[in-house]
Amino acid sequence: MSARFGVNYTPRTGWFHHWLDFDLDAVRADLDAIAVLGADHVRVFAVWPLFQPNRTLIRPAALRQLGSLVDAAAERGLDVSVDGLQGHLSSFDFVPSWVSTWHRQNLFTSDLVVKGQAAYLTAIATELAGRPNFLGMSLGNEFSQFAGRLHPSAAELTVAEAEHWLQTMLAACAAGAPRAEHHHSEYDAALFDPVHPFTPQLAARLGTRTTVHSWIFNGTAKRYGGLSEQSVRLAEYLLELGRGYASDPHREVWLQEVGAPAPHVSAADAPEFTRRTLDHVLDCTGLYGVTWWCSHDVSRDLADFPELEYGLGLIDQRGRVKPEGAVFAEFAGRPPVEPAPRTLGLVLDSGATSSDDLLAPRRDTCAPGGAFFEAWMELAMAGQRPAVVLAPFAGDELHLKARRIETLVTVERL
Amino acid sequence: MSARFGVNYTPRTGWFHHWLDFDLDAVRADLDAIAVLGADHVRVFAVWPLFQPNRTLIRPAALRQLGSLVDAAAERGLDVSVDGLQGHLSSFDFVPSWVSTWHRQNLFTSDLVVKGQAAYLTAIATELAGRPNFLGMSLGNEFSQFAGRLHPSAAELTVAEAEHWLQTMLAACAAGAPRAEHHHSEYDAALFDPVHPFTPQLAARLGTRTTVHSWIFNGTAKRYGGLSEQSVRLAEYLLELGRGYASDPHREVWLQEVGAPAPHVSAADAPEFTRRTLDHVLDCTGLYGVTWWCSHDVSRDLADFPELEYGLGLIDQRGRVKPEGAVFAEFAGRPPVEPAPRTLGLVLDSGATSSDDLLAPRRDTCAPGGAFFEAWMELAMAGQRPAVVLAPFAGDELHLKARRIETLVTVERL
Repeated sequence: MSARFGVNYTPRTGWFHHWLDFDLDAVRADLDAIAVLGADHVRVFAVWPLFQPNRTLIRPAALRQLGSLVDAAAERGLDVSVDGLQGHLSSFDFVPSWVSTWHRQNLFTSDLVVKGQAAYLTAIATELAGRPNFLGMSLGNEFSQFAGRLHPSAAELTVAEAEHWLQTMLAACAAGAPRAEHHHSEYDAALFDPVHPFTPQLAARLGTRTTVHSWIFNGTAKRYGGLSEQSVRLAEYLLELGRGYASDPHREVWLQEVGAPAPHVSAADAPEFTRRTLDHVLDCTGLYGVTWWCSHDVSRDLADFPELEYGLGLIDQRGRVKPEGAVFAEFAGRPPVEPAPRTLGLVLDSGATSSDDLLAPRRDTCAPGGAFFEAWMELAMAGQRPAVVLAPFAGDELHLKARRIETLVTVERL
Repeated sequence: MSARFGVNYTPRTGWFHHWLDFDLDAVRADLDAIAVLGADHVRVFAVWPLFQPNRTLIRPAALRQLGSLVDAAAERGLDVSVDGLQGHLSSFDFVPSWVSTWHRQNLFTSDLVVKGQAAYLTAIATELAGRPNFLGMSLGNEFSQFAGRLHPSAAELTVAEAEHWLQTMLAACAAGAPRAEHHHSEYDAALFDPVHPFTPQLAARLGTRTTVHSWIFNGTAKRYGGLSEQSVRLAEYLLELGRGYASDPHREVWLQEVGAPAPHVSAADAPEFTRRTLDHVLDCTGLYGVTWWCSHDVSRDLADFPELEYGLGLIDQRGRVKPEGAVFAEFAGRPPVEPAPRTLGLVLDSGATSSDDLLAPRRDTCAPGGAFFEAWMELAMAGQRPAVVLAPFAGDELHLKARRIETLVTVERL
């Protein structure tokens, strides 16, 4: 398998507000710049309240514009994956008025809301299904944050309800585009917060592949340093963690987001961070691809972004490729090399009682500073190339064999 | 003075989401229908997050579209008043992502938010200032609801802060259009809730005129019946209440919203409600005008509106004038008649300790069922044509003389 290289498309002019002033020529210019990087795909983002301002109004013009964006990408040899429920982007939440304040409902369990979301995802998938460069949908960028306990308007949710919502949304995508590949994405709390209703097993077992979003501002950079081994291996670690939670030993992982955030990584260090991160990531087996965050820096004309969000682009505001963009392009242009299997499995006991158990009540062991995190990093830094084996699979010979795992080690015995 | 007649413009296709699919021909057709009613003006509504999706991005295209709407109105002899901060419309709140959830700030006291709001209002006013049919701005439709204690994300606010915010926003409108007339609008809680930081005095003393929004679903219809004298006199009452709270005896009042909401008023009764309401309203002195809510019924294709919001139009979804529309047109077409002064003043003691006091800690006496409300209605139904005199003005001979008040009566002495 040859890993795909792509970028998360952040429109140079207007950021995602560009949907309000959609300009296909500006999109084409952005995509031209992305193609120059050697990317083979982009991940693009609808803005939910603009596409579906009323529950029963999914704007045909918005769907047409999205379609024209996908077509413009095709003209440049770029495939496209589309996130529907934004939802959340770079600290900003976009939630339609029909589920806010006076109309507030649980975004995951309200029957009307779920029907509305499903209709919306089906509409997008239907619009794009016939386009050969359409890869499929992601439900929404880290939508599960709306069920995170730190969210200002967190929804109450059980794991069973989270699973049901994911199944329903994935089915809605498939209803519109049955042959495309549909995914969902999680954020750190789902992987590390013991009580988050979206569990790592849901992340690793629903949808076509397991997606990984790797951000060193999750505590890794603060604890270990922005250019520490822990930071430049965070994406590798999360990919292996995703592999470990899967029940299918052959399930692929997709590094759907990774970036070099200031001030944890200075502008001068961003190329090195990018190079070392990608080196490690390409040493993971089962890697579907890498989608860098992001294509274009955010304009300083736009206010109120967290400082780090302005400078994440591989391309600057004037359209010039940044040094980290050159590193990305170098990797994207390399001939593919299949890494050797990882034969050492570090056993993860995050509390699941069986291979079917979807709970991970001790998943905080995986967070930066947690015992499992530290043990895995220790092995990795010692050159051991550790994989992750979830405890219920540690006695499953077929599973281990399929993954080419030969040796198991537990955190306690390190 | 001849009262102006106008309507609140609710676009027939797409409701206020029409800004996302702005179609000037559709707007023209709507305005043609409104002109047929004999209206001389419309009140129109921007949608805040669409016009200002980022604090420092006030979309030029949105301003241009608004300008083209105002021009289209001019071609049909219609003047236009524009509300900026929506904010709130028919149960739906539209709040930009830069002041929501992770970015939540106090909508009235945050320095950044206030600067953003001011820039936005100035931008609209500047865009429209040169157009001869531009009447001026209203800050936002009942924006003070965001400081009401029942609001799901109510802001903490003092009366002094409310006053400061209003002054700042009115100044922002004036900065863009110095010669236009700018207003603000309140909802029932500001008039009736003893702790609401927007007080009736603020309503009656800031801005060019006092605006009144009269909705019998505020408890009046439930308590007295939809066609009761209390209901068909509610607008008249609120206008006189507005006059009473003013310190300027000549300050005009504008009935900026009034409508016939089902099921409190059935479709069959709507013409009678309209006729009786307008008869009473036109018996008020100092009336600037009546702006009916609303021009067009809301399409049943749009979901989740409160039931009563669908049928408030004077024009139905097919573009036909409804019977209540015909009543409106009849009134709009009548030659003006100046009502005789109201010489009987009912003294209102809602707790203000002086004529400069902006507080009304006992304003619940004015609510439906309250002692003052009932006393005023009793006089009105007895044919006494009561005005309202705020207690601190009851001994102010000049004030009373200017208003032509000859006799005072107190609630206790009735």
